[in-house]
Amino acid sequence: MKAVVLLSGGIDSSTTLAIAKNEGFECYAISFDYAQRHRIELDFAKKVAKHIGVKEHLIISFDLRKIGGSALTSEIDVPAGTQEGIPVTYVPARNTIFLSFALAWAEVLNAPFIFIGANVVDYSGYPDCRPEYLQAFERMANLATKISVEGKLQFKIHAPLLYLTKAEIIKKGIELGLDYSLTWSCYDPQGDPPKPCLKCPSCLFRLKAFEEAGIKDPLLK
Amino acid sequence: MKAVVLLSGGIDSSTTLAIAKNEGFECYAISFDYAQRHRIELDFAKKVAKHIGVKEHLIISFDLRKIGGSALTSEIDVPAGTQEGIPVTYVPARNTIFLSFALAWAEVLNAPFIFIGANVVDYSGYPDCRPEYLQAFERMANLATKISVEGKLQFKIHAPLLYLTKAEIIKKGIELGLDYSLTWSCYDPQGDPPKPCLKCPSCLFRLKAFEEAGIKDPLLK
Repeated sequence: MKAVVLLSGGIDSSTTLAIAKNEGFECYAISFDYAQRHRIELDFAKKVAKHIGVKEHLIISFDLRKIGGSALTSEIDVPAGTQEGIPVTYVPARNTIFLSFALAWAEVLNAPFIFIGANVVDYSGYPDCRPEYLQAFERMANLATKISVEGKLQFKIHAPLLYLTKAEIIKKGIELGLDYSLTWSCYDPQGDPPKPCLKCPSCLFRLKAFEEAGIKDPLLK
Repeated sequence: MKAVVLLSGGIDSSTTLAIAKNEGFECYAISFDYAQRHRIELDFAKKVAKHIGVKEHLIISFDLRKIGGSALTSEIDVPAGTQEGIPVTYVPARNTIFLSFALAWAEVLNAPFIFIGANVVDYSGYPDCRPEYLQAFERMANLATKISVEGKLQFKIHAPLLYLTKAEIIKKGIELGLDYSLTWSCYDPQGDPPKPCLKCPSCLFRLKAFEEAGIKDPLLK
């Protein structure tokens, strides 16, 4: 069975792809060049897609700097450390935009499953990672599309990491043979060749995750 | 009060913009260059935005030919005449993608209203123009965004043309001073300078609309 998998090249989406593949899905990975500050993640997404083995890897480009409103797509600085509440690295409606393109592709492919690496534990505070949001998107998707309205296929938004801790996510990925040296998390890459800043919220979540999993981050070798 | 208005440059979205403006909204128009066959509509969208008077007109670009699945974004021919059921000019998840970008911009602008020219009378058969779809999108939008989850603003998807006939839409636009010579409908422009084909479903809907309204289409002068 076919599945479209959102793939940013980070830990969560890469592990999600490994899980989908392990469950026997024929995987179609989709990534987005949205003029993000850490566009380097796309190079890692390509490596991960090849490493895990996908049927096709689609990269869709658009410029979210035109809309702005986030430290990842405007001149707002990426903060050092993590924040209370919804952080400035939140990108307005990002998962809704990503899932909408995934939905379009899933309809063309006749793929009933869309996988997303959303997670509510060790939680970054993003509203569009919560189960109630994902359920509402799924409901909307099945009213939006020709294939579902004609009764030929119902879409399912699947978030297998939803209730896992970051440490559990990494252990799961390693169990499935995922090479985390091919993943990228940092929002604010430094130098050339780029290295993780080790200060941004995404780096801090990653450091904590590997520490709690009792595993050395292969990217820091 | 601010409103984001989806503007394709066709009759419905242009009339919707005229209505939003007339209701006193500060209008932010958003259009999409999605590699559509009738990309010429964007030139008309710009004219309409200027004619009606918007605070800003944003054009977001991405290539839906990479996803395909529609006569408007692939090598499938645009049919002559109208079809039963959902036609081949249906673009998978198009309104979901458009509304997602509009939602992102609305959040950044702090705009509670998103206007869309969806219509179920003289109906083109698109599932993502129906009221149940629009309601599901609105519900999802209010679970997706920081501004709504924090209780600062609730988004409203407003479709003022939903239950109007095409003739009523045109009469409404003319009443509001909209110059329909600045709008474009044809899916399959012919020649240079481009002229409407007068055969595609969108041309046929337009011809019928002006005929029923008892008004000459200024584009055919």
